[in-house]
Amino acid sequence: MRPTGPSSVAVIGLGLIGGSLARELARDDVRVLGHDRDAEAVTAAMRAGAVHARLDDSFDGIEEAEIVLIALPVSAGPTLLRRLAPRLGCARLVMDVGSTKASMDAAALELGLERFVGAHPLTGDHRSGWGAARDGLFRDQRVFLCPSRVTRPDALAAAGRFWQARGSECTVMDAAEHDRRLAWISHLPQMVSSALALTLGRRGFEPADLGRGARDMTRLAGSSSEVWSAIALGNAAAIAGGLSAVIDELDGLRHALLRGDAEATTEFLAAGAHWRGA
Amino acid sequence: MRPTGPSSVAVIGLGLIGGSLARELARDDVRVLGHDRDAEAVTAAMRAGAVHARLDDSFDGIEEAEIVLIALPVSAGPTLLRRLAPRLGCARLVMDVGSTKASMDAAALELGLERFVGAHPLTGDHRSGWGAARDGLFRDQRVFLCPSRVTRPDALAAAGRFWQARGSECTVMDAAEHDRRLAWISHLPQMVSSALALTLGRRGFEPADLGRGARDMTRLAGSSSEVWSAIALGNAAAIAGGLSAVIDELDGLRHALLRGDAEATTEFLAAGAHWRGA
Repeated sequence: MRPTGPSSVAVIGLGLIGGSLARELARDDVRVLGHDRDAEAVTAAMRAGAVHARLDDSFDGIEEAEIVLIALPVSAGPTLLRRLAPRLGCARLVMDVGSTKASMDAAALELGLERFVGAHPLTGDHRSGWGAARDGLFRDQRVFLCPSRVTRPDALAAAGRFWQARGSECTVMDAAEHDRRLAWISHLPQMVSSALALTLGRRGFEPADLGRGARDMTRLAGSSSEVWSAIALGNAAAIAGGLSAVIDELDGLRHALLRGDAEATTEFLAAGAHWRGA
Repeated sequence: MRPTGPSSVAVIGLGLIGGSLARELARDDVRVLGHDRDAEAVTAAMRAGAVHARLDDSFDGIEEAEIVLIALPVSAGPTLLRRLAPRLGCARLVMDVGSTKASMDAAALELGLERFVGAHPLTGDHRSGWGAARDGLFRDQRVFLCPSRVTRPDALAAAGRFWQARGSECTVMDAAEHDRRLAWISHLPQMVSSALALTLGRRGFEPADLGRGARDMTRLAGSSSEVWSAIALGNAAAIAGGLSAVIDELDGLRHALLRGDAEATTEFLAAGAHWRGA
């Protein structure tokens, strides 16, 4: 048992991230209160010892939690935060774990929630749901922490300790900057993977036709489309900018190939390899 | 020792594929004659026991080899094949291992090489050079075999046995069909990976900024730009067609995001996930 850790945490949404957090917290002797729209996910998590008490749809008993974690698709987070706000007075830390931070930041600010910290663990896993939850998901992974303008410093410090206990490395930035940045380094690669998968699918190819390298290129496409469409729509303008930039690169290469431009083709490939440290 | 295997094989080009083949053949007690434009790669391979005798730049002694393997960037293969052709009379099998097959096929046909079989192991590794060569590279991987119109059936059968001994699964198709197909399932993912790497690099991001998933998406970009520019230019029209198709998908998504079209965005992501079997 960690003497400095929370004694009780509520985890709302027992998917990949919420479920993995519940597992790890329970293993550290924290009492975990769990909720999921799928009652069977809660049952499975309780059977696995990752959740000790079920929160029903009215969230009665959530006042008991020292930390409240909202691990829902980003489109659902703000609504829930507004609904729960009156009952979050006792919590010393409230976090969501979504991949875009601006909408939760706006909701927390509007509600004046001084103990809210937006968090985004960059887990890089395409699997989803309770079945994908596991120990060690956050170890050595980056977690972005996005305090709002009203977040108290001790809440941010508590968030840092929480993720460090998971083995994560924390980077603090504001929500708007996070979303602009993540559009490039996370959302764009996800969209590109989906576009490649779609392209190959439309041509009649199957995943089994691919070699290891190409299979890796379409792995992210297998992520939850519910989770990702909420992210994409919530960060649409920034992602559209990233898509334009990739399209420009692809089109430049296409023209170089069609005119048989060896220099431009080699330069294109060499620049990518150089960036990758090859 | 395999009683049915070749007693002597010449490997020209000791990079990822040639070097890995040399290693495995030597381990199987085959005598390996090795050549590389980098004399130090041959020295390293001899020190590792993967090559028993060095072939100099005149290729004296290549007549001794039962199997001749050409493992060079695809732009260099046909020239070497033309140069070696008069001395390949004793070999019972001549193969190259390049990622495009049409240019070697044309050269072998022109030279009337009845024992030539184009081979393409889909190893899916972005590393290159002797340092990347290793045992097991071909195990459970697909190898395309492309006999030309003059290839003798016993040479094709020998090629099949050769790769089956490496643990590979062989698929036979003609060179033109191979190149059309591989433009989609291999060359296109490679180019998309490079385009994504370039895009992120131009925006000032580093590989270390990426999570696991996005890092996988740019891994192929780290491949040898020399090897890949030869492939891209040698299969330019087909790859350009693939690029157009990916650009169309990306642009369709971009427009859906900009008009906030939740249905189209979700459909796009769901179709990619469905293809991936998610």
